[in-house]
Amino acid sequence: MLADHRQQLEALGPDAIPLLDEAADYLAGGKRLRAQFCVLGARSVGRVDFDDADESETDGVAPGAASPALGPDADRILDAACALELFHAAALIHDDVIDRSDTRRGRPSAHRHFAGLHEDADYRGDADHFGLAGAILLGDLLQSWSDELMQRACDATGDRAAARAAREHFNRMRSEVAVGQYLDVLEEQRPAAAPEAEQLERSTRVLVYKSAKYSVEAPLLIGAALFGADEEQEQSLAEFGLPVGVAFQLRDDVLGVFGDAEVTGKPAGDDLAEGKRTVLVTLAREALPNTQRRVFDDMFGDPELDDEQVEMLQRTIRDSGALDRVEEMITRNLDRATQSLAAAPINAEAKARLGSLADRSGRRAF
Amino acid sequence: MLADHRQQLEALGPDAIPLLDEAADYLAGGKRLRAQFCVLGARSVGRVDFDDADESETDGVAPGAASPALGPDADRILDAACALELFHAAALIHDDVIDRSDTRRGRPSAHRHFAGLHEDADYRGDADHFGLAGAILLGDLLQSWSDELMQRACDATGDRAAARAAREHFNRMRSEVAVGQYLDVLEEQRPAAAPEAEQLERSTRVLVYKSAKYSVEAPLLIGAALFGADEEQEQSLAEFGLPVGVAFQLRDDVLGVFGDAEVTGKPAGDDLAEGKRTVLVTLAREALPNTQRRVFDDMFGDPELDDEQVEMLQRTIRDSGALDRVEEMITRNLDRATQSLAAAPINAEAKARLGSLADRSGRRAF
Repeated sequence: MLADHRQQLEALGPDAIPLLDEAADYLAGGKRLRAQFCVLGARSVGRVDFDDADESETDGVAPGAASPALGPDADRILDAACALELFHAAALIHDDVIDRSDTRRGRPSAHRHFAGLHEDADYRGDADHFGLAGAILLGDLLQSWSDELMQRACDATGDRAAARAAREHFNRMRSEVAVGQYLDVLEEQRPAAAPEAEQLERSTRVLVYKSAKYSVEAPLLIGAALFGADEEQEQSLAEFGLPVGVAFQLRDDVLGVFGDAEVTGKPAGDDLAEGKRTVLVTLAREALPNTQRRVFDDMFGDPELDDEQVEMLQRTIRDSGALDRVEEMITRNLDRATQSLAAAPINAEAKARLGSLADRSGRRAF
Repeated sequence: MLADHRQQLEALGPDAIPLLDEAADYLAGGKRLRAQFCVLGARSVGRVDFDDADESETDGVAPGAASPALGPDADRILDAACALELFHAAALIHDDVIDRSDTRRGRPSAHRHFAGLHEDADYRGDADHFGLAGAILLGDLLQSWSDELMQRACDATGDRAAARAAREHFNRMRSEVAVGQYLDVLEEQRPAAAPEAEQLERSTRVLVYKSAKYSVEAPLLIGAALFGADEEQEQSLAEFGLPVGVAFQLRDDVLGVFGDAEVTGKPAGDDLAEGKRTVLVTLAREALPNTQRRVFDDMFGDPELDDEQVEMLQRTIRDSGALDRVEEMITRNLDRATQSLAAAPINAEAKARLGSLADRSGRRAF
């Protein structure tokens, strides 16, 4: 598909090539979690007639690379899976602008990449602003390509009701992610955390809408709907997918505070400097005595945190017991997912693969 | 449709309301040029069974407001027309961030609106950055809603080939606009204008892809394709639409330099301060003797231009003869459009309306 777009856009001349190159480079990375859940959603409810495109091997498949040799069912599920990855890439590109993140997937984030082009070319004007413009437009372009692929998947689906159901999940996901991300940004702007119970509700809402549903439940439901899932199957996949998504995001929150830069591809303690009011952080604050909490609040969200301060905040969070509580929550969510999965009226082989992918999601072991 | 989305997103809580409110407010404005061309595209090739939703009356129709009382044909063409307006709103919101424009449609632009919310609420962090985040996310949200409406229009189209053709025009338009906008931004970053012939080619390419095709040709073709236009009809509508779009954008360039802030909703001489290398500006530079050109280049693109400097640049452009040449180009393009229209094998009533809308597009008289 990228090749088709490149050809179609040739009339716009050679200056457009850096934009299309960055699109291709950007899509080469990532763990393709959403694509994997989407393919497994499809396999949960139908025999998808391909063997070479299972969830482990989509790792190496470039978006839009579905080959006609795999058969029409494989093509349409790969189109849907790639639509999700393209949408995710678009969202990350915009998120990195919003979060001022300079790295992504071990490379400069898109706005940094375009700012670098500007610097190298000795253009006039502000390199950072050019970086911002390039990233906004690349995100927009990928969002529209994502939509094209989803459309192609739906068009190739003979069962019109199934196609419509898949679209509805896709549409809802997109709206929820944009609004969830807005709420996330808003949380960071509040001068102080809300009273604890309310803050936990807020943090959980962001976690559920911005990440948990989006990373696991929605991809599963899109894949399943496209292959004609009935109501009961959708229900069980949702009951499995939501807790897996919650575990996945809680693990992300833990890594955002305690993660190794080598593994996460982001600086250690990134979420602390950014002031992300995650569930982990909210539980930690809740457990602290007043004086300690004031010290915590003074450092938290300071973009200039040094290594020692990061370590001090990490220690505080660990000692507060919040880390243990979040680990328990991860375990509890994965257990709940396992139970839902056991009872789900879906294909047995897909079930086994889903169990293993859920486990890896909770550990971020991809 | 906005009401449906609002209801669906209720679970995300009251904090999301400002985002949804701004979506609704933003969509209330605008001249709906694209919606009008889309509806007329449909009427060009088929009898659309509604009388109350012609091109003049879509002015008052809120996106997604198609009523079942109008009949299914009216519903799907209004869905497509509103999809175009939503897409356009999304593009403008992102463009205003990229161009650092503070006003749009006589109101604060979206990023200024969100920055204002931040200031009023006494949040921590940077109000401008929050404005940026809100605008990026609102644009993303509207882009996905646009896509939903286009999808609904296509789903309601019994003729699958017609639906597919309409989608293809829509998809191509989105890609071309994003890449065209990237090229536009790139032009502004170049330290100096290219040699004249090349610069004219560059400026024309941006004009065609970022604006002319997008404003007129694509909406016409989308509407026509959805109602089963044959190849000859599409060809004539393209031959009419492209020169109208070119005239429309050339007029915009003239207004960007000479326009009255009251009419354009933007500060006078905005394009001069921004350093937009439009066809008008390129023709003016071309005609200037070397010394005058150096003076011109020194002022052009300076964001701090004062009124006197703006007037001096305006006078230089007028005296160079470039304004006359652009006026001739506008006339020539409108003439070419009129000729194409006369020969077009389309509905006579739609033809008359298209002629009048083309004329208004060249004069910006809406």
